Amino acid sequence: MRRIGFIGLGAMGGPMAANLARAGYEVHGFDLSRPLCDRAAEKGIIISGTAAEALAGSEALITMLPAGEQVISVWGELSTDFAKDILLIDCSTIDIESARVVHQIAKASEALSVDAPVSGGVAGAEAGALTFMCGAEELAFRAAKPILEAMGKRIIHCGGPGLGQAAKICNNVMLGVTMIATAEAFVLAEKIGLSHQALFDVASVSSGQSWSLTSYCPAPGLVSSSPANNDYKPGFLAALMLKDLKLAQDTASRLGVAIPLGALATQIYALYNAQGGGGMDFSGVINMIRGERQS
Amino acid sequence: MRRIGFIGLGAMGGPMAANLARAGYEVHGFDLSRPLCDRAAEKGIIISGTAAEALAGSEALITMLPAGEQVISVWGELSTDFAKDILLIDCSTIDIESARVVHQIAKASEALSVDAPVSGGVAGAEAGALTFMCGAEELAFRAAKPILEAMGKRIIHCGGPGLGQAAKICNNVMLGVTMIATAEAFVLAEKIGLSHQALFDVASVSSGQSWSLTSYCPAPGLVSSSPANNDYKPGFLAALMLKDLKLAQDTASRLGVAIPLGALATQIYALYNAQGGGGMDFSGVINMIRGERQS
Amino acid sequence: MRRIGFIGLGAMGGPMAANLARAGYEVHGFDLSRPLCDRAAEKGIIISGTAAEALAGSEALITMLPAGEQVISVWGELSTDFAKDILLIDCSTIDIESARVVHQIAKASEALSVDAPVSGGVAGAEAGALTFMCGAEELAFRAAKPILEAMGKRIIHCGGPGLGQAAKICNNVMLGVTMIATAEAFVLAEKIGLSHQALFDVASVSSGQSWSLTSYCPAPGLVSSSPANNDYKPGFLAALMLKDLKLAQDTASRLGVAIPLGALATQIYALYNAQGGGGMDFSGVINMIRGERQS
Amino acid sequence: MRRIGFIGLGAMGGPMAANLARAGYEVHGFDLSRPLCDRAAEKGIIISGTAAEALAGSEALITMLPAGEQVISVWGELSTDFAKDILLIDCSTIDIESARVVHQIAKASEALSVDAPVSGGVAGAEAGALTFMCGAEELAFRAAKPILEAMGKRIIHCGGPGLGQAAKICNNVMLGVTMIATAEAFVLAEKIGLSHQALFDVASVSSGQSWSLTSYCPAPGLVSSSPANNDYKPGFLAALMLKDLKLAQDTASRLGVAIPLGALATQIYALYNAQGGGGMDFSGVINMIRGERQS
Repeated sequence: MRRIGFIGLGAMGGPMAANLARAGYEVHGFDLSRPLCDRAAEKGIIISGTAAEALAGSEALITMLPAGEQVISVWGELSTDFAKDILLIDCSTIDIESARVVHQIAKASEALSVDAPVSGGVAGAEAGALTFMCGAEELAFRAAKPILEAMGKRIIHCGGPGLGQAAKICNNVMLGVTMIATAEAFVLAEKIGLSHQALFDVASVSSGQSWSLTSYCPAPGLVSSSPANNDYKPGFLAALMLKDLKLAQDTASRLGVAIPLGALATQIYALYNAQGGGGMDFSGVINMIRGERQS
Repeated sequence: MRRIGFIGLGAMGGPMAANLARAGYEVHGFDLSRPLCDRAAEKGIIISGTAAEALAGSEALITMLPAGEQVISVWGELSTDFAKDILLIDCSTIDIESARVVHQIAKASEALSVDAPVSGGVAGAEAGALTFMCGAEELAFRAAKPILEAMGKRIIHCGGPGLGQAAKICNNVMLGVTMIATAEAFVLAEKIGLSHQALFDVASVSSGQSWSLTSYCPAPGLVSSSPANNDYKPGFLAALMLKDLKLAQDTASRLGVAIPLGALATQIYALYNAQGGGGMDFSGVINMIRGERQS
Repeated sequence: MRRIGFIGLGAMGGPMAANLARAGYEVHGFDLSRPLCDRAAEKGIIISGTAAEALAGSEALITMLPAGEQVISVWGELSTDFAKDILLIDCSTIDIESARVVHQIAKASEALSVDAPVSGGVAGAEAGALTFMCGAEELAFRAAKPILEAMGKRIIHCGGPGLGQAAKICNNVMLGVTMIATAEAFVLAEKIGLSHQALFDVASVSSGQSWSLTSYCPAPGLVSSSPANNDYKPGFLAALMLKDLKLAQDTASRLGVAIPLGALATQIYALYNAQGGGGMDFSGVINMIRGERQS
Repeated sequence: MRRIGFIGLGAMGGPMAANLARAGYEVHGFDLSRPLCDRAAEKGIIISGTAAEALAGSEALITMLPAGEQVISVWGELSTDFAKDILLIDCSTIDIESARVVHQIAKASEALSVDAPVSGGVAGAEAGALTFMCGAEELAFRAAKPILEAMGKRIIHCGGPGLGQAAKICNNVMLGVTMIATAEAFVLAEKIGLSHQALFDVASVSSGQSWSLTSYCPAPGLVSSSPANNDYKPGFLAALMLKDLKLAQDTASRLGVAIPLGALATQIYALYNAQGGGGMDFSGVINMIRGERQS
């Protein structure tokens, strides 16, 4: 396979497409934003005038868009042009129901389809080190895997259509909650007079360990790559963490599952956003817990 | 140093004292419970008739008791017999204020004192693999370290008197919250139709990773040593997790720190206890989240 | 106006339609359930074979259905038959967005439309004592008012289309939260040894007063009409309170509003439902707070 | 009875003592603050140089102090001077355990004792319109009642020693939670576009009604006496609401009662305090929910 269409060239999609180009694919990209297209062109993407143009002649199409409606809209509009057996990969983080709708659109055209949301953030996208959580039939997954390997390190088949999105939101419930708990522990330590370093030394080798602590510590000076060391510049936007937690909340609500800590974490990020923190890294919530102004 | 007094020979204290004996110390133990004394005797502990007898002639005294009042009471009663420069180590998990009171008792007798709560549970106690979080002056810490190394793997100096307890409760806020979040994620996955295995495979190498997930997974079949594979038999009692979270809550309340997720986790364990789950491992809270009866 | 079509003759719709008939209207009713139709017929409703039949020749149409999709579906299907200036009233509790969709359907047919969700429960429906919260243009509200007065005591114009639903969910956020808080206070009183009566005597004339306390007390023996005195038989189903809280949650989430207590109350009812309490009155949540089994 | 000693002449104690003087009692008052004494003197209180001086020759002693330790300390120090059968009334809001300790101090001196915390705030204190929640033996209650009637409108006997405090904290759990829920509902209404007036009109006659809504509405313009109409100047300090909720939390924690909404309300007030809202009226929490800065 050589030619790939890529719709959505933003903070994530741009570097992902660039990695595909670097791996030797002929990437035809499209985005509604002219500056994003220009930046992508510099990285070796051939810019198309429309989404349909990016699709035409491609053996695979990748979308990286903000929400379910956009993915449904793009796949839906392009579907009349889907070649039989074309491979369609949606890397957006969207709700499971929308993901299943787009799989249906693909199926109606006898296309192969994969939902493949990512974790790893902008840094992971740039480094080609993303994790892809894939929901797909076996055949579609196998077709997608080599392409995804050009953009990421771990390509995990989570189950049938939609279950990539499911894995993403379940992961992010744990992440969103654990980050706030870690922030609470550090603020509590501060007020007690326990040093950040001592808490880190203990918890990083104890039962309080988590990725939030040891890879992304919300207190500065402990994990060099943490946004905490960069004034909480994202990283992973608090507004996006809120979006992911809402997806989880909606799903839990629809299925009748109680996720009380997930729900409260959602509210805490909602408050952080309302107080002006939405543009900060999600670990910046530690400042709100501490009682500080967000802006 | 050869002779050590050891007060409190329960589920934790018993195997800890046994490891000291195994390491060559002459351990004189005492417990109010006769059966616990008998069991300790089998492991090489010399049983004393009273706490004072265990202390007499010992170069160090270790206490492992349920709560701050008991530690204050035991250290207080024995304090008239404290030799100058005796080393006093309290391994109980107690509130910071009580810990500071017992350090004062020691100081009044010119004794060296260390608060050294542990993590690692009964399994860690038996394997001599505990983590000790120590609050002490430098001199006292240095004196205690070789003794603690006979019972644990990691001996961490967290700061001055009381800061061992501080590290413990901050760690356990993260632990208590993260365990429930992990349980929520697995229950949500179940209802979506995402397999436990797939969620584990994704999250264990992603941002949702935590000790609760990868070392103590609340869903069965994923981490062999998890109580989840043993009908949620402790392990670490839910009632004790509740106790630790209350210590954190009390401290946060006293210091005016908001720890909303820590507070809600406390309530969830309180409800789990009220519904009959107190005697289960704390990861058994997944059953309550799922809507199941606890007993 | 004499002839009214009425779609949805369930626990609420049945007695509401009966009150219209009692007030002299010719009510043509329809429901998918045969037994509900039979029961309505006994109360003076003329049963139609289809929704369209109930509509034909009616000057007003009232719907009382479980959720937004049904209302959209019924109004949508019937819309080709809407006479110009027919009055359409939806008394269902549905999400604001769906309410606005059905107003659009009405507008396209030049019909007058009102969203008029109710409070007062089955007892209020039977007694003709409901409160109607109306969202409508002035003209539509004025047309609807005399009809609603045959079924309720208070007919409140909350604002334009959809704002009746808005008032309902905002009211029910307060209700859902306050009921649980009241339950918590009574359970706490029990454990302290403060009698239910004493707490009621104090709080009913103090700052803790609420409708949940003085009109619907979750502890038995204090307010004679409370479901608490009838084994927590509904009354207002816990499952419906959960539904209403989810509507509020979805709206808050969409608008970026943090409603932390509303969110936690939602989770508590979700847990109550998961534990088997969905079929009980919503005040039965006191039993879960107390640690009792729900079934 | 004519002569009464009164210890604690602050925002509440001052006007309470003044009402006693107005009712014809000879009130001998004491406070550590000179300005408070001066202000009380203007209201007819005879100022004593010490607490013991205020007690000497009085038939009753009333204390109105910030916390349990102060009450224990004052009653303890004065206890050697307690005449047999003197009537001791503590109007402070303190924890139940401390209340029981001070009753013990009284009992040891064969004094009559009443815990009688109040509700009604500064306005109620000034108007002589407080509610007193009394915990006392029957005899002590009967002796205290006429005195309390000079300061309040409702004198309620809640049960034995300590149960006045119990009633107060159970009431305030309902109050603290319901106020935040009311604030959430109004903020949600704002974002939906539902007017404050419409929500008030509906909820004040519906199931969402509460004292927080109809007597102390956190949105301005609806209840004339609300602090909302006075820039959220207290009224009832958010810092004091936090104190009361912590008393409830501590009691619930000690007794093993889960009060999840009470716990979360505590955290929300803790965050409001941390963000600078402690000196505002507790209804000002609506501003934090709305995302506004507190200072």
